[in-house]
Amino acid sequence: MSRYRTETDSFGELQVPTDKYYGAQSARSLINFPIGVETIPPPLIRALGIVKQAAARVNMNLGLLSPPLAEAISQAAGEVMTGKLDEHFPLSIWQTGSGTQSNMNCNEVISNRAIELLGGVLGSKSPVHPNDHCNMGQSSNDVFPTAMHIAAVEEIRHRLLPALQFLRDQLQSKSQAFSHLVKIGRTHTQDATPLTLGQEFSGYTAQMDNALRRARAVLPALYQLAQGGTAVGTGLNTVKGFDISFAEEVARITEIPFKTAENKFEALAAHDAIVEGSGALNTIAVSLMKIANDIRFLGSGPRCGIGEINLPENEPGSSIMPGKVNPTQCEALTMVVAQVMGNHTTISVAGANGHFELNVFKPVMIYNLLQSIRLLADACQSFAKRCISGISANEERIGKLRDESLMLVTALNPHIGYDNAAKIAKKAHRDGSTLLEAALALKLLTKEQFTEWVVPEKMIGPRG
Amino acid sequence: MSRYRTETDSFGELQVPTDKYYGAQSARSLINFPIGVETIPPPLIRALGIVKQAAARVNMNLGLLSPPLAEAISQAAGEVMTGKLDEHFPLSIWQTGSGTQSNMNCNEVISNRAIELLGGVLGSKSPVHPNDHCNMGQSSNDVFPTAMHIAAVEEIRHRLLPALQFLRDQLQSKSQAFSHLVKIGRTHTQDATPLTLGQEFSGYTAQMDNALRRARAVLPALYQLAQGGTAVGTGLNTVKGFDISFAEEVARITEIPFKTAENKFEALAAHDAIVEGSGALNTIAVSLMKIANDIRFLGSGPRCGIGEINLPENEPGSSIMPGKVNPTQCEALTMVVAQVMGNHTTISVAGANGHFELNVFKPVMIYNLLQSIRLLADACQSFAKRCISGISANEERIGKLRDESLMLVTALNPHIGYDNAAKIAKKAHRDGSTLLEAALALKLLTKEQFTEWVVPEKMIGPRG
Amino acid sequence: MSRYRTETDSFGELQVPTDKYYGAQSARSLINFPIGVETIPPPLIRALGIVKQAAARVNMNLGLLSPPLAEAISQAAGEVMTGKLDEHFPLSIWQTGSGTQSNMNCNEVISNRAIELLGGVLGSKSPVHPNDHCNMGQSSNDVFPTAMHIAAVEEIRHRLLPALQFLRDQLQSKSQAFSHLVKIGRTHTQDATPLTLGQEFSGYTAQMDNALRRARAVLPALYQLAQGGTAVGTGLNTVKGFDISFAEEVARITEIPFKTAENKFEALAAHDAIVEGSGALNTIAVSLMKIANDIRFLGSGPRCGIGEINLPENEPGSSIMPGKVNPTQCEALTMVVAQVMGNHTTISVAGANGHFELNVFKPVMIYNLLQSIRLLADACQSFAKRCISGISANEERIGKLRDESLMLVTALNPHIGYDNAAKIAKKAHRDGSTLLEAALALKLLTKEQFTEWVVPEKMIGPRG
Amino acid sequence: MSRYRTETDSFGELQVPTDKYYGAQSARSLINFPIGVETIPPPLIRALGIVKQAAARVNMNLGLLSPPLAEAISQAAGEVMTGKLDEHFPLSIWQTGSGTQSNMNCNEVISNRAIELLGGVLGSKSPVHPNDHCNMGQSSNDVFPTAMHIAAVEEIRHRLLPALQFLRDQLQSKSQAFSHLVKIGRTHTQDATPLTLGQEFSGYTAQMDNALRRARAVLPALYQLAQGGTAVGTGLNTVKGFDISFAEEVARITEIPFKTAENKFEALAAHDAIVEGSGALNTIAVSLMKIANDIRFLGSGPRCGIGEINLPENEPGSSIMPGKVNPTQCEALTMVVAQVMGNHTTISVAGANGHFELNVFKPVMIYNLLQSIRLLADACQSFAKRCISGISANEERIGKLRDESLMLVTALNPHIGYDNAAKIAKKAHRDGSTLLEAALALKLLTKEQFTEWVVPEKMIGPRG
Repeated sequence: MSRYRTETDSFGELQVPTDKYYGAQSARSLINFPIGVETIPPPLIRALGIVKQAAARVNMNLGLLSPPLAEAISQAAGEVMTGKLDEHFPLSIWQTGSGTQSNMNCNEVISNRAIELLGGVLGSKSPVHPNDHCNMGQSSNDVFPTAMHIAAVEEIRHRLLPALQFLRDQLQSKSQAFSHLVKIGRTHTQDATPLTLGQEFSGYTAQMDNALRRARAVLPALYQLAQGGTAVGTGLNTVKGFDISFAEEVARITEIPFKTAENKFEALAAHDAIVEGSGALNTIAVSLMKIANDIRFLGSGPRCGIGEINLPENEPGSSIMPGKVNPTQCEALTMVVAQVMGNHTTISVAGANGHFELNVFKPVMIYNLLQSIRLLADACQSFAKRCISGISANEERIGKLRDESLMLVTALNPHIGYDNAAKIAKKAHRDGSTLLEAALALKLLTKEQFTEWVVPEKMIGPRG
Repeated sequence: MSRYRTETDSFGELQVPTDKYYGAQSARSLINFPIGVETIPPPLIRALGIVKQAAARVNMNLGLLSPPLAEAISQAAGEVMTGKLDEHFPLSIWQTGSGTQSNMNCNEVISNRAIELLGGVLGSKSPVHPNDHCNMGQSSNDVFPTAMHIAAVEEIRHRLLPALQFLRDQLQSKSQAFSHLVKIGRTHTQDATPLTLGQEFSGYTAQMDNALRRARAVLPALYQLAQGGTAVGTGLNTVKGFDISFAEEVARITEIPFKTAENKFEALAAHDAIVEGSGALNTIAVSLMKIANDIRFLGSGPRCGIGEINLPENEPGSSIMPGKVNPTQCEALTMVVAQVMGNHTTISVAGANGHFELNVFKPVMIYNLLQSIRLLADACQSFAKRCISGISANEERIGKLRDESLMLVTALNPHIGYDNAAKIAKKAHRDGSTLLEAALALKLLTKEQFTEWVVPEKMIGPRG
Repeated sequence: MSRYRTETDSFGELQVPTDKYYGAQSARSLINFPIGVETIPPPLIRALGIVKQAAARVNMNLGLLSPPLAEAISQAAGEVMTGKLDEHFPLSIWQTGSGTQSNMNCNEVISNRAIELLGGVLGSKSPVHPNDHCNMGQSSNDVFPTAMHIAAVEEIRHRLLPALQFLRDQLQSKSQAFSHLVKIGRTHTQDATPLTLGQEFSGYTAQMDNALRRARAVLPALYQLAQGGTAVGTGLNTVKGFDISFAEEVARITEIPFKTAENKFEALAAHDAIVEGSGALNTIAVSLMKIANDIRFLGSGPRCGIGEINLPENEPGSSIMPGKVNPTQCEALTMVVAQVMGNHTTISVAGANGHFELNVFKPVMIYNLLQSIRLLADACQSFAKRCISGISANEERIGKLRDESLMLVTALNPHIGYDNAAKIAKKAHRDGSTLLEAALALKLLTKEQFTEWVVPEKMIGPRG
Repeated sequence: MSRYRTETDSFGELQVPTDKYYGAQSARSLINFPIGVETIPPPLIRALGIVKQAAARVNMNLGLLSPPLAEAISQAAGEVMTGKLDEHFPLSIWQTGSGTQSNMNCNEVISNRAIELLGGVLGSKSPVHPNDHCNMGQSSNDVFPTAMHIAAVEEIRHRLLPALQFLRDQLQSKSQAFSHLVKIGRTHTQDATPLTLGQEFSGYTAQMDNALRRARAVLPALYQLAQGGTAVGTGLNTVKGFDISFAEEVARITEIPFKTAENKFEALAAHDAIVEGSGALNTIAVSLMKIANDIRFLGSGPRCGIGEINLPENEPGSSIMPGKVNPTQCEALTMVVAQVMGNHTTISVAGANGHFELNVFKPVMIYNLLQSIRLLADACQSFAKRCISGISANEERIGKLRDESLMLVTALNPHIGYDNAAKIAKKAHRDGSTLLEAALALKLLTKEQFTEWVVPEKMIGPRG
């Protein structure tokens, strides 16, 4: 058996490997775009499969596609959806900006696989034609953005939200576990008034609560599907109602409330919903940078840092310093943060540069969005599991630092005024003495008053 | 009368101009931060005034502040709110990252103005002390982020939303006015199937509908006020309920549904709500870049471009080319877009770098957010008024281009298949002939069929 | 034979596949960092091999490593350099921020491969120990940044510079070929005074000349190698002169003038040279966006755009519009541009967040830098080969647009003044007449004067 | 006397204030662009004055402009250069993207001021016409980018370089002063092997040495002046040699080696040199973020942080916490860093979006570049003067932390191997014991060996 078969497109013939379902346009794209190593990611391949299956079913129901063809296409598309045919999708991200070639890749794979299912000859385009049947009533210009939305939504719902929830829950759990530990606060990286370690973690928890809200808030715009707009948004070569039925079918397949886009011109020409989605990821990344930085500084040491918390030891930390343990989960997470922030720039630049009826930065936009989702989800899972959940408090250290702090003087403001309290703090700092010693030396209050007023445990909330 | 009076802070004495209400800490800040020319913007000064008025009233109601002092502070704060005392707020953005010095600036101005109202001596701190009275139950760490949110919300609601609505309405109006004009579509910047000019503008309208939605969606997080968290979020030195009463008072003053932040630790240590807000502005900017680019290309010419629409002529366009008219409103708008996209990077970097109980990039964050809001609002107003509203269609040009286009061939797909249609288009392109001529030459259909099937007016929507 | 063998690190035992050379720390990293799909790219693996070979040779020359061990390590490292062992480097980018685990991955692979060469038992760490021998006098903290620089330099020199040169040459070639074609200029996207198509392409050529200069200018900082700094920059556990000899050895291996870093503390704690390098790539990307956008707009049409140039047709352009050809190389290139601009944000954020003696965003920085280099190089090659080189001028269209333009009126400024020239242009625009007709109607000059003064061919340079 | 006079442009009449020199086009711009509050910054106004003076002189020398007019223009331009007429330049940044209106603003101001000098009537355009004389042989399209380069170069040379040098020298001075203080190193924010505080500061010094190199390296591209390209780069309406003579005249005026741009098409249509310049500022910003973050963490405390250095106390730190002192100069500087990083995004987006013969994001690009330069310069000056120069070492704290550190164990690697050294460190960490105690308990070496081998002072460099 030959290793290659001949496939054709409107530009002519091309040889394709016999063990691959893709056809001439895919093969031509491989020749024309030898750029980088980044290929269409699996969630997008799956989403293309969903589009093709839904379209075939709707076309059948509309009487446009014969049931045997529709069934074969639907079965082949189903195989695409499961990832079984991923190896037949070799195309680069750096291709046509509309994703046309990946749409054709999908059409070709499904066409050939459906032909195979129906006993035909691969590459014959008969009885299942990649354009006339697999792409019936469709255009890359609506197929690809539809797949972008489906992939983004599935990844956010199935991957990101659970990861954020898991991290949020681990933080919340620590917040409760640490609710009794009064520690020194730090503002401007400098000693400040006390709070509990639980309160500190409650701030992180609140950030993750908001992260969940932000990730969910971008879904409605992404639920809107461009399908039915065809080439320029008008829906030329579809029939009325195709768009609505299509979205319903996708909703059925995915069990997610997708619906047809309110304005198809906007849905092809702009990808503001993707930019909006990336904006939420950027905010989430910013939150995570704050949390991960705090964790590594609070856990710094073991002897020459802050050391208020102990981080789990997951691996040897250094190839030269024996016994060293590093906050590696924080590091992986903050590297992901930097990536997501940069991906957001990429997506914003790409989103801003559409022209007329089409934005032609589609592959780079969805590649970056999916990468950001995946990385945030995986890194949050790992950070929650291998770092947060294993954190313990170093109670001895916490107590020592808290009791030495000069900022407990703030409790005196309501009693002796800001200016007098400042004198005490400055004197203690200058002398290396305790606040009590300084207060007494300055004769600003009695020992009894000091003992009554300066109580860290009373400083962690408003007055009754 | 001397030009300077002596004011003091805990670091010592300083001379301040007698015609200014600010005191020693402001004067010290002017000395310590001779950086750039950017000062605290008026909406933030107003918001600081709101904070101080609301705090004074709540403190009075709680019995912590005597009514005469509260009334004087409230009156002075009211003057700050109206902008009457803006000249007394000279501090740089590039100061302490908590905005401490601007909080003290406000405390000093209100203290001195209130002293004046009560017949006292400026700089005496009596009977109204900048810390003990004006800052009662407050910390810069909660005052400043509270003012950030108030300023951002007021600017979004009073400035941005009306501007977006106005632009949206102008676009919608043009979409309706142009609903009958069938024109060539363009994808990949290349000729594509037709749509109406009204449909094209409907896409822009949809983008602005979404812009409005996005701008509104960030408000709830910004309604949450940090006030009551004081130094580190615990609320030390406030009394229970201060935070809720304060937010109610601000809501009353502003007639906006502000409320106290659910988690004060997050509200001081992170400004994710500002990053989120900036993310929405970034998406809006991206939308505007698309629209403005389209408008200038559609209006390019007058003779050597696309020229489908006529842009209003607002000014001479060139200092060397007589008679030239340029799409200057598009240019101003797209420059604003670039600024907003960059400001978003600034805000994201700043938001990511908080540490422990405090983010100390507060002034730069709010400076950029307010600039982005202001610029988007002003530029949208100007673009709507001086560009969009004056656009007319060049119907002759539109008709000529449409009728010459080869992409009308797409209407033949359902009749003769994609591959045959492609042959016609390619032949016409090669020969410089019309589609009809090429179709007949290739004997793929009759003239009657062509005339029936290829009708631009029938190509602007799905089949019945 | 078992599918797994036991390897150990200081944390304990782990099972690793018998067909892999890596050891316990690599296996542990695979468990601890299940994040994303991005792994250490081949140029960096090669660079790690170079580091290990050079270090082994220098250690041998210094009498610290026995010749048989050094030779075995050197041979194994050589295999790493050629890419032969790439499959043994499975680690994620999202690992320890110092790249420690990839350094250990390399140590483990080389140790085991060298053990194998010497007839020992894999995993025995004898006679070649991954730390004591392969990492002798080294730390991940100097190995990894050294490898970063080597990889970046090799990729810039061997991949990027030739690609930029090729694109530059293609543009220059077109500039010469089109030097006689006088066409209308466009400023503000509007008609302006004429220039030649060759002049237009000379601007692009100049941008690429500068791109070459910019890419070369970042090399000297990247030539500086951190090796010899060990854990914190002091060079603890190395011997004097190791750093210099090492750099000489790397220079010998690579035939590139690497040298030891002037300040090892900076070389570990900051990666400003990487940020600088990315800055150059960002500028190059910006240049390419301009060029690619111009090319697609100049080639827009075929009938309803500008159409002054013809772009090569490489593939079918649309799955729904038959015969459509799109500027797909421009699209792939501009998507790359967006990616590079975003990668620059990532690298800048990462570069800014080092702490104390170490920046721990190393893997994400080099991952993005290498991706940017690769994508720019590949996309420039493809764009030059499949787009620029195939561009032809549409002389008929160029001539028609030029001769219709109103901006030829600018030639009259020196003769009749700006204000009078403006009157002519405005009248012609209003009336749809030619400039000559308008000029005569306004009696501002004679036909003879017009014919003498308004000559596009004389408008493409300063007066004699 | 009337408060307004009538001025005219080709669009008609407009009233302008009698006390202002600007004319109709400026007034029209104020009406058409009511956007934001950002106006053309003084260094750019000065640069426009330089352009006009140089052009007038060259035109006179070429015999194109009569000496009396040239002299009057030159004198008026000189007044613009000194800043004396800044109040006559009210235009917004958010105007025409070519800066046309600011070029005309300058032409109008100089025309009217020259008319005044020559005894004429303001607004009469006689005997000095804003276009025909002040703009002779010029176009906004070459004037404005020329002024951009001049302003950027002057600000870099006169403001930024001295500031960077000053900061570098202060850091170097501290590096020398602290050269004897052996302290614990920190990698991954965790304890690591020792180095001197002087070595730590030497890293910062090296970063600033590179910053100086980077800032200087962008100058040559900025020395190239667009002037002579006129409308589209061809030099239409100039005479041969004008461009070279002009650049020489600017070099003479500024005493800076400006020269005419090698390719005028590139000089108008792209501003890659500005993007390149911003890239250098971005790298410098990244360096400063690292340094400022280190300084504030090393100086954190006073009692609950790292506290190895003491930062100067410049002002009261808190409105609620008495006696608090904060690293405010670090905060101002890092806020500037965030701004510069965002400005770089703005400049990159703007630089990427030029079309055909003109980039129309000129004002926003130079506004951001000049802001970045100014802010970096001012913030570096302030940081050097008010923070770095006042830093002292807390020797007691440094010694205590160093001697407690477990990472001194690294010195044992060459003697007992990495694995054994790791056992000692882990045991000491687990037991809370000293390294010596753990080493003896494990019987891995004698006390004498320990005392000989583990000497922090011997760990700060390679072996003899």
